[in-house]
Amino acid sequence: MVTVDSNAPVSGDAGRDGMGGFWAVIPAGGAGTRLWPLSRAGAPKFLHDLTGGGRTLLQGTVDRLAPLAGDRLIVVTGVAHEEAVREQLPHLDSSDVLAEPLPRDSMAAIGWAAAVIARVDPDAVIGSFAADHVVGDEAAFHACVRQAVTVARTGRVVTLGITPTFPSTGFGYIHRGDPLGVPGAPDAYAVSEFVEKPDEATAHRYLESGEYRWNAGMFVVQARVLLDLLQDWHPHLADGLRVIAEEPARLSEIWPTLTKIAIDHAIAEPAAAAGSVAVVMADFPWDDVGDFHALADLVPGVSGSGPKVLGDASKVLTRDASGLIVTGDRVVAVVGLADVVVVDTSDALLVTTRERAQDVKSLVDELKRTGRAELT
Amino acid sequence: MVTVDSNAPVSGDAGRDGMGGFWAVIPAGGAGTRLWPLSRAGAPKFLHDLTGGGRTLLQGTVDRLAPLAGDRLIVVTGVAHEEAVREQLPHLDSSDVLAEPLPRDSMAAIGWAAAVIARVDPDAVIGSFAADHVVGDEAAFHACVRQAVTVARTGRVVTLGITPTFPSTGFGYIHRGDPLGVPGAPDAYAVSEFVEKPDEATAHRYLESGEYRWNAGMFVVQARVLLDLLQDWHPHLADGLRVIAEEPARLSEIWPTLTKIAIDHAIAEPAAAAGSVAVVMADFPWDDVGDFHALADLVPGVSGSGPKVLGDASKVLTRDASGLIVTGDRVVAVVGLADVVVVDTSDALLVTTRERAQDVKSLVDELKRTGRAELT
Repeated sequence: MVTVDSNAPVSGDAGRDGMGGFWAVIPAGGAGTRLWPLSRAGAPKFLHDLTGGGRTLLQGTVDRLAPLAGDRLIVVTGVAHEEAVREQLPHLDSSDVLAEPLPRDSMAAIGWAAAVIARVDPDAVIGSFAADHVVGDEAAFHACVRQAVTVARTGRVVTLGITPTFPSTGFGYIHRGDPLGVPGAPDAYAVSEFVEKPDEATAHRYLESGEYRWNAGMFVVQARVLLDLLQDWHPHLADGLRVIAEEPARLSEIWPTLTKIAIDHAIAEPAAAAGSVAVVMADFPWDDVGDFHALADLVPGVSGSGPKVLGDASKVLTRDASGLIVTGDRVVAVVGLADVVVVDTSDALLVTTRERAQDVKSLVDELKRTGRAELT
Repeated sequence: MVTVDSNAPVSGDAGRDGMGGFWAVIPAGGAGTRLWPLSRAGAPKFLHDLTGGGRTLLQGTVDRLAPLAGDRLIVVTGVAHEEAVREQLPHLDSSDVLAEPLPRDSMAAIGWAAAVIARVDPDAVIGSFAADHVVGDEAAFHACVRQAVTVARTGRVVTLGITPTFPSTGFGYIHRGDPLGVPGAPDAYAVSEFVEKPDEATAHRYLESGEYRWNAGMFVVQARVLLDLLQDWHPHLADGLRVIAEEPARLSEIWPTLTKIAIDHAIAEPAAAAGSVAVVMADFPWDDVGDFHALADLVPGVSGSGPKVLGDASKVLTRDASGLIVTGDRVVAVVGLADVVVVDTSDALLVTTRERAQDVKSLVDELKRTGRAELT
């Protein structure tokens, strides 16, 4: 954690239009089970370059937030990944990475960062963005977050609502209410409710109505507001996080006692019911890279009609093939398969189709059940 | 090369029914390109256990011939594979393996063995059987070879004609003539002609006529007869092989000068035209394991409807998959692919379908063309 350097162009820019008090919080967790064997418990998807652009998802998330947050950035991750996170982000100060002794879900992770930030910057607005998502249009993302910060300064909890591009049954949705009319935030609306992942018919209805947005888990809120709401609804969790922020030495004692709950359930849903949540309409392309089907869309295509290649394309030979090939150390030859997914790693190989990409999770479950958790 | 030990049960058995003068010759060559990346120039298919029975094709060929030939067995292979052949066949004497300095096709290989054998056993009948074929019914094979040896003792060149099970366009055919009436060889017929690989319509006609058999390249003939025929049609080759058999030190000088020709063209076809070739009808299951489609039929199935596995089945996880998986060092997971072929090796991976198995050859050609011959 570094105080803002007013001579730095980024912080200077940020300061000029009111982003000086904006802090980025990046929860870096989740195994990305449906991206096995590329993503593993020991090397989860946020540590991988999944778009072939030379930066990992974590690095891409930091890069995307730097123009808004400057050096005011905290990554919260598990102890198992602390070292990898620090290696991938060498410019971060030691105190910029918070390492959870155990997974305690997103409320504890984001709340911890909020408590740490609130001690340094009592008026801070924090924005929480997962380390393993992909955003297609950074300028649109930045504009959207700026509006969200403006709305957050009115005391609301603000979420970004992604324009659905298809009737997904894999995401939660945000039902928007009336426009808020906050100056400087023309795309901000009240949230009438958060809804869980719908069935297919409901998802179609949501898409057609135009009133629903995907919940990408992006929250922007004043740190103080977040902690106050937490105090109201989960006082033990709020107390624990404040103590940890004040006395870091007590982390290992208190952390295991914290309630394991997602920020959506802990704060966003009850606050929405109380009318204090806003949504900023977000039109930038977004994906949580949930499986190889999604990844195949994200990896840039090469010339011709062959499969997309993530990794070293010179290792791939194909005839009449399409889909996605993730290369490892070896040559991969594919003949006569459409929409195939081939993922080559040093100790495990996956061959499936884009259509069946969701079923990869059950393989990981089977590996764990049959005593081969070291592969997962 | 070992003289027959009359105390050994195998040789004793062989001697009792007139097989005492029978020598097995096993040409061990050919890269098995359509079985890439399992079969390589450096480790061709005869060195692999392709049926999961614990013996390589070469070892299986030797095992199959031992009851007939006892210790009278010669393997002819390239210098590059001499060491591997000796390792796989540790009971062979040093002189039982002939190592060709360069590939000179089947006539030179078999003729060399014939010349060596004729010096030790002037009345020998040799039977030549490729090291990389699979035979399904050993008793039927043995009975067939015994008839062939009986016919060969009448001075004929004898081939085994495999009953076609489908209208293959991948094999040459033998058109049988009249029964020969040789005592002890009820299934022996004259050969009216050898025909090259037919087109599909012709293959159907061959199958329906009942007069055509697959040419599996199995020849049984007196060594002396073979060398005399060779002397007539390819005197330089015959002379060269006799000199090499008499003065092994001159191998590297003479071998490169020998004509490169297949035994079919050099001897079998002209001898058939001259009316001196016989065919013994062979009803045993046979396959030359030409590609992964064929291999998938040969590998024993496991319980249920999953894919066949060649290798360590405990490394394979599947959902709704069928076909063939050849395992290497890693876990292989396949989801939602029918009739797929997955071949995992340490430096190359193949994913294709049974239907496209023939196209594997073109991948190998491409690897060679693009400077990656070390993978082929």
